[in-house]
Amino acid sequence: MTGIDSSGMVNAFSGEGAIDDDTARLVARRNRLLGPAYRLFYRDPLHIVRGEGVWLTDAAGHRYLDAYNNVVSVGHCHPRVVAAIAGAAAVLNTHTRYLHETILDYAERLLALFPAALDRVMFTCSGSEANDLALRIARAATGARGVIVTDHAYHGVTEAIAALSPSIRSDEPRPDHVECVPAPGRFLGLPDPGAAFADAIEAAIARLAARGIATAALFADTVFSSDGLFVDPAGFLRPAVARLHAAGALFVADEVQAGFARTGEAMWGFARHGVVPDLVTLGKPMANGHPVGGVVMRADLADAFGARTRYFNTFAGNPVSMAAALATLEVIEEARAGFCPTARALARGFADLARVSPRVGAVRGAGFFWAIDVIDDRGPDAAGAAAVVNHMRHHGVLISAVGPCGNVLKIRPPLITTPDQAGIIADTLATALQAG
Amino acid sequence: MTGIDSSGMVNAFSGEGAIDDDTARLVARRNRLLGPAYRLFYRDPLHIVRGEGVWLTDAAGHRYLDAYNNVVSVGHCHPRVVAAIAGAAAVLNTHTRYLHETILDYAERLLALFPAALDRVMFTCSGSEANDLALRIARAATGARGVIVTDHAYHGVTEAIAALSPSIRSDEPRPDHVECVPAPGRFLGLPDPGAAFADAIEAAIARLAARGIATAALFADTVFSSDGLFVDPAGFLRPAVARLHAAGALFVADEVQAGFARTGEAMWGFARHGVVPDLVTLGKPMANGHPVGGVVMRADLADAFGARTRYFNTFAGNPVSMAAALATLEVIEEARAGFCPTARALARGFADLARVSPRVGAVRGAGFFWAIDVIDDRGPDAAGAAAVVNHMRHHGVLISAVGPCGNVLKIRPPLITTPDQAGIIADTLATALQAG
Repeated sequence: MTGIDSSGMVNAFSGEGAIDDDTARLVARRNRLLGPAYRLFYRDPLHIVRGEGVWLTDAAGHRYLDAYNNVVSVGHCHPRVVAAIAGAAAVLNTHTRYLHETILDYAERLLALFPAALDRVMFTCSGSEANDLALRIARAATGARGVIVTDHAYHGVTEAIAALSPSIRSDEPRPDHVECVPAPGRFLGLPDPGAAFADAIEAAIARLAARGIATAALFADTVFSSDGLFVDPAGFLRPAVARLHAAGALFVADEVQAGFARTGEAMWGFARHGVVPDLVTLGKPMANGHPVGGVVMRADLADAFGARTRYFNTFAGNPVSMAAALATLEVIEEARAGFCPTARALARGFADLARVSPRVGAVRGAGFFWAIDVIDDRGPDAAGAAAVVNHMRHHGVLISAVGPCGNVLKIRPPLITTPDQAGIIADTLATALQAG
Repeated sequence: MTGIDSSGMVNAFSGEGAIDDDTARLVARRNRLLGPAYRLFYRDPLHIVRGEGVWLTDAAGHRYLDAYNNVVSVGHCHPRVVAAIAGAAAVLNTHTRYLHETILDYAERLLALFPAALDRVMFTCSGSEANDLALRIARAATGARGVIVTDHAYHGVTEAIAALSPSIRSDEPRPDHVECVPAPGRFLGLPDPGAAFADAIEAAIARLAARGIATAALFADTVFSSDGLFVDPAGFLRPAVARLHAAGALFVADEVQAGFARTGEAMWGFARHGVVPDLVTLGKPMANGHPVGGVVMRADLADAFGARTRYFNTFAGNPVSMAAALATLEVIEEARAGFCPTARALARGFADLARVSPRVGAVRGAGFFWAIDVIDDRGPDAAGAAAVVNHMRHHGVLISAVGPCGNVLKIRPPLITTPDQAGIIADTLATALQAG
């Protein structure tokens, strides 16, 4: 068992586990109704019926500490977000062709968290739609169509963005306007990793140019989640962004994973690199699970796009979605003061494990987003990572695994996790690593 | 004033109206925060603060009968939908990689409303995402990439689907895999309009083939809304679908506008044409404003796609979205018995107008979706249509206009509209037409 299925997914249910009758019945119904493109997590899938804070509860009443779901970043069913949704849904849910205050209040509050140059926002229903819109805007502003992404990038599911997501294996052909560059992991041993990455960007621009294609943008997850999570070295992206700008291309910072304080210290992943992106895309935790995404950008880019076309996304920016996003942002901002003890507990817990367990190759991360390479004496140990993930699931802590080799544990507890709960995560992981 | 702006939009606020201070302040804030791709309706934009049933209320306390918004098809803030959202949001909002009953209950209920051959559904957050996914599935299943759409089609806002939406004027280049065919209006005078449309499809397939491109699918809104609304002649699509299948191509029925009983009689627009689509896309009214879309399809198409890739849409299919969709569907199904009197009142009201007003060129429609061509003695009267729309807005009834010439009034009251309210719509329209 490698833990990686034919689509490149780590930790997918394969049908091999010994599942109970309730689970088997639901799996069969699901396959019959939804088809095979839908995948479940874990060797024994979970039937979740309730969520509260960091906890999920299954149909049998077992509780799990959800240390994986980066959407509900202020915790499952946060009462203020639930109340905001319920309250707004009872008053008005209509579209952006009427004036409404909530979208403007939220836009102001959100833009205040960005560098001054980034002063426009457009809303979508998902991170995929946000990246897709950013692509359209980048192309309209540059007149170019080429795009550079990392080798194992994931940016979303629309046709245009799936083409920018090589981490999803597929036999859909890679279009000629896409070029890949290695993620930071490839450069970490070098004297100047950022300069080497910038050289790789320049080579990709040249390969596109050789096919007659000008480069519109680099799309990069600013913590390189699907590439294995690389928050360091700080400043890594700066030379690449300078090289892109010199070539007339833009930098689209995909903050769907890193954004909204996931890394603890800064609100956005790009801050760690001392760069100001041209466009920033947002999704997952933006409204704690209510479908909201967005693109933050410089005014000149919004103007270039808006002068040529109009954009109307039926559901996006509606008063209910904006109320959910506003409540979520308020909770995140208030909770930030309490982040440090938990983030420190997570960092310390994983560092301790790296010291004592020969199965831990490296620990990377910051704040509430951690990656742990599971290794054996031959190198990356995907089967071992899968065993750890499933052992933890059976001992009440939910995480998953990722990365090109499938051996990288991915740990992302909610931002409201307490230091004690951080301890539960580290302890359960230690037990799972010992279990072999 | 033609009523059509540079992006091809009818009834867009141009900044020319005499607006009050509150409105001017909100417009300025909006422009500063959201940029110019966002458009408002009406010469004097509306600042809406509350919705209930067919009624919207603005900040000054004026009430408007919403005869335009086809999203809230069971009425603004329907108490059962609001309760379903509030209830589900307080219990669990997580993704489809865990088992959950609500998505399966809804999928079963939804698929029961389709011909037996259409027995799989996948969920998205919007109609745009649904059409985008249908495109990926159609291409995976056929191995072809060409797509045929109507001259003034609208299918959504993603990069791939904006390319299939010529009704949105843009200087983004039309890709070589897209071919257009005329909408039904062009064929209505002919002895066999459906056969002529099928010939146009065949010619489009040949034009694609001449460029070395095989045809994957026809995407068609089954009531051709943005082309000017053509529900008749019944059976119109049948010869075209046969021709597509003979060429190895698929028919994607875009039911984002027509679906969920908008035309009163049938749940789906394709039913009127006696065809079974290969894929059906759903959106707008699916959850009465909560962001939900979907693709219904044959099992073999879902299998062909799912065998090659996986699909994970973070927010789509979550328990809250599915509870909202389920409640909406239940209300629609229960309300269907009461549809007839209102649908008859609308049909009678508009037919009466066509008889007495020389400004009414033609009336087309069914159920709760009507189009009225405004004409003068030279032909289509876009300025006249804009005047009617704005007159009605100032007399408490909200409609809009559409069509290649911008002269087609578009009227879409909620499915819960009473016959008396239908009378208000027709009477206000009569007054507006007389006002000149």
